[in-house]
Amino acid sequence: MKISLGARITVGATPVWIVGTYDTAGKPNIMTAAWAGVCCSDPPCVAVSLRKATYSYGSIVQHKAFTVNIPPADYAKEADYVGISSGKDVDKFAKLKFTPIKSDLVNAPYIQEFPLILECKLLHTIEIGLHTQFIGEIKDVKAEESILGENKSLQMEKINQFIFSPGTLSYYKIGDYIGGAFSIGKEFEK
Amino acid sequence: MKISLGARITVGATPVWIVGTYDTAGKPNIMTAAWAGVCCSDPPCVAVSLRKATYSYGSIVQHKAFTVNIPPADYAKEADYVGISSGKDVDKFAKLKFTPIKSDLVNAPYIQEFPLILECKLLHTIEIGLHTQFIGEIKDVKAEESILGENKSLQMEKINQFIFSPGTLSYYKIGDYIGGAFSIGKEFEK
Repeated sequence: MKISLGARITVGATPVWIVGTYDTAGKPNIMTAAWAGVCCSDPPCVAVSLRKATYSYGSIVQHKAFTVNIPPADYAKEADYVGISSGKDVDKFAKLKFTPIKSDLVNAPYIQEFPLILECKLLHTIEIGLHTQFIGEIKDVKAEESILGENKSLQMEKINQFIFSPGTLSYYKIGDYIGGAFSIGKEFEK
Repeated sequence: MKISLGARITVGATPVWIVGTYDTAGKPNIMTAAWAGVCCSDPPCVAVSLRKATYSYGSIVQHKAFTVNIPPADYAKEADYVGISSGKDVDKFAKLKFTPIKSDLVNAPYIQEFPLILECKLLHTIEIGLHTQFIGEIKDVKAEESILGENKSLQMEKINQFIFSPGTLSYYKIGDYIGGAFSIGKEFEK
């Protein structure tokens, strides 16, 4: 018997992505986004949703570019701070001793200290309601050698990512390996 | 020193959501979506991206509704199977012995056996490229009592969700609790 919880955001896990932009004066800034995800394979695209009230909103509108910086769990406190502070009031790069690197592909900065980053060019802007969704085409993914295995293959354990639970307002690590995708379900094909 | 991996979908973790629809003949069907996420708080909305080639695509276009069913890790094999098989060829509900329940709010079925489900009404359809993004307004969230604590609060550990890693084509459990959101970052406010 299922119990109604009402029309609200209760989906279990969401990503914790740090979105990098230049503000209208060209100063690097970051914010944390959880209303985000992949939305197309070709062109490869991600979507991040921002409220118009955020400082980063105007930056994306102006520069038509952003980066996605995947925080390792070691930086959970920093990522949380990036989500509760505003670039209007504080230089978050300076405060957290992060190094902004200008992307050579899009007009946005990424965080040097993070091992996995995406450089995105704004493709679509969708007005939904409180949030505006920005769809960005991934122009490149850049990774530290430390999270790569043979043939530049990613090592999920080394990315050491974590997730946000909006239903409980908490963060969790990624845990144990379950199995291969497009593989473990084949037993039902019999 | 960061290494370029090229323009591809390499974001660490994505959700594993099972999307429920009625096909054009009214038969319940499910597919697995990883290009998905929350995209607005008010109205509360989620986005799922589907290729036009999927059997579910026409179902959402016709009925303007879908459910999101959050699979527990115990159902990882079933969720994988739902992603590698097509409703054009097989009745996935019957094959997996899942029970389709018609939503009383939208014209789509959900999986009785899953503890957390969202009932969504199609709000926007965004053509991006290979994938079409469907933005659905959450009309209700329904949960089994078994995953709820006091005052209908969600228990993340009991949802027992898992994630997909597109960069390594594998599934991982959600792991250890890190800390409270909008809380652990406050130490940097000093």
